[in-house]
Amino acid sequence: MIEPVTSDQPALYLQLNGSSDFVNDVCGIGNALVDVLSQESDEFVQAAGVPKGSMTLIDEERATALYAQMGAGIEISGGSAANTIVGVAALGATAQYIGKVRDDQLGAVFAHDIRATGVTYQIDSAATGPSTGCCLILITPDAQRTMNTFLGASVYLSPEDIDLVAIAASKILYLEGYLFDPPEAQEAFRAAAACAHDAGRLVAVTLSDSFCVERHREAFVDLLQNHSDLVFANEAEICSLFQTDSFDEAIAQVKQLNVTAAVTRSEKGSVVVHQDHVLEVAAAPVDDLVDTTGAGDLYAAGFLYGVSQGLDLATCGALGSVAAAEVISHLGARPVANLSELAKTVLAP
Amino acid sequence: MIEPVTSDQPALYLQLNGSSDFVNDVCGIGNALVDVLSQESDEFVQAAGVPKGSMTLIDEERATALYAQMGAGIEISGGSAANTIVGVAALGATAQYIGKVRDDQLGAVFAHDIRATGVTYQIDSAATGPSTGCCLILITPDAQRTMNTFLGASVYLSPEDIDLVAIAASKILYLEGYLFDPPEAQEAFRAAAACAHDAGRLVAVTLSDSFCVERHREAFVDLLQNHSDLVFANEAEICSLFQTDSFDEAIAQVKQLNVTAAVTRSEKGSVVVHQDHVLEVAAAPVDDLVDTTGAGDLYAAGFLYGVSQGLDLATCGALGSVAAAEVISHLGARPVANLSELAKTVLAP
Repeated sequence: MIEPVTSDQPALYLQLNGSSDFVNDVCGIGNALVDVLSQESDEFVQAAGVPKGSMTLIDEERATALYAQMGAGIEISGGSAANTIVGVAALGATAQYIGKVRDDQLGAVFAHDIRATGVTYQIDSAATGPSTGCCLILITPDAQRTMNTFLGASVYLSPEDIDLVAIAASKILYLEGYLFDPPEAQEAFRAAAACAHDAGRLVAVTLSDSFCVERHREAFVDLLQNHSDLVFANEAEICSLFQTDSFDEAIAQVKQLNVTAAVTRSEKGSVVVHQDHVLEVAAAPVDDLVDTTGAGDLYAAGFLYGVSQGLDLATCGALGSVAAAEVISHLGARPVANLSELAKTVLAP
Repeated sequence: MIEPVTSDQPALYLQLNGSSDFVNDVCGIGNALVDVLSQESDEFVQAAGVPKGSMTLIDEERATALYAQMGAGIEISGGSAANTIVGVAALGATAQYIGKVRDDQLGAVFAHDIRATGVTYQIDSAATGPSTGCCLILITPDAQRTMNTFLGASVYLSPEDIDLVAIAASKILYLEGYLFDPPEAQEAFRAAAACAHDAGRLVAVTLSDSFCVERHREAFVDLLQNHSDLVFANEAEICSLFQTDSFDEAIAQVKQLNVTAAVTRSEKGSVVVHQDHVLEVAAAPVDDLVDTTGAGDLYAAGFLYGVSQGLDLATCGALGSVAAAEVISHLGARPVANLSELAKTVLAP
């Protein structure tokens, strides 16, 4: 299914550290959201006044107004890191998720769906405050997604919600950049990263969205330089981080930071930067491109699964390609096909 | 896309009666439900102890237990008559729906989705009582659906909820057989049919499910004989109604009733019985059979649209075939493609 990764370099590895006593392969923290997807025209997106292809934060009033304008939808559990963690579990690794919902119907849907995939999810639902967060996603005929997020209960994720014991016992901690938007969650973010590093574990982050990078550029550079081992980004995000239009320039800049980077480039595949090495990874073929929601999330899932299993970085990237190709071939950001079967095309070609 | 209907008989019509003053082409009444779909193995369905391919009524406790066992799902508005009415509206006719939800999140999803398709839906949500009804649907690898319905708030549909003015001003009243299950809704059912007939309108019903027919066989025969102009059924339902294993025998029996019948036979197409005439209608081709949920509902949508536009019964059947083929090519019982565009392949081949 996927072209074998060709490289004249020796196999590269991101070393797993810490003790061999672990409970989870990966523990993820993010904004817990339920996605509401509807297929809309480009004119609709334009009239809604939101930048096509990106994520815009909206308040409850705006969410209500936009939802009223949207066509009939389907509801599927989402949330960037949650999608990734579900992918990691679907690939066969042990995974835990930390994110906050309200004790309402959509919160119950979120909790059910993530647990149904075998992910450990034991955080208490909020009993008061705003309802479970949702992401109103407009899918245009070109399969592009434009996201409008009402964070709802997810912003009430606080340091007390963070299961430090679980984090210290996870090979990799994975954090979504969107967490930088609500200040309370940002605090939780830093506490979690410190805990993981204290236990000698790996810390991985995703930049999430180019506008998110713009909103928090300095914090992100500091985070990558001083607190992370692995960063995920797409072309727009890495260019936004370094305020450049040149991809090559962005890659040169990220080499200066003390972090391994996996940068996705849609149909051009991905580029993995590790120390002085730059590895190109092919995209996996997609028969029918339906909805690009979750492409980056599932790339990260495949990659993190590989790292957690001690695989080399080229194989990690190929696993990311396969998982991303699956999720963009149907509506929604959660895998539908059997990911561990698909992974075999990479692991035992 | 579809084989032209060949018939050596003159075109047959179901005459529209009543005054030409109408507000809706079709007004439907049914159990308002949100579907929760998950893909499960045959073993899962067997272990759940529910008859594969049919609809089983479950209480809230059982719904909670079954949901806990199910895999990650997607939520899409459903309800048999609601699916049909959405299809009628998507084909370009004016339509109204009557069915009860609770004032909770899934109730809001149901109301949003049906209104977003252009259907008039103005019934008040229940402020107390059970939550919005849901249908837990297990999709097996053969694309068959096995439905488990918790009726929830939908059973609180009462005669006071029925908009008699709208019914008297609709060319066709459409009623789902599932309404016969809760006694209170059955009463509303009869009141609505009487109102439509008093205004000289057509009354159409669907038998819904072979077990539903078994539960209410005598009431259904009386309804068809004395209170209906058009009945929809599939092979299993019509055979159950007449307690026969022979399809030909069932067709012979339905001819004795004073009702036009449209009987669907999956990939064998459908048979329309009108007075002494029997018309065979081909199925429309399906490239990729994904989920048969809603096949009968959307067949009824195409057929009712045709009747409401004064088209002959062969064309009504062909429209039913096209709408059914669309809905079984994807997950969920609501149309995704532009039905009025698809209908053109039948209306102007």
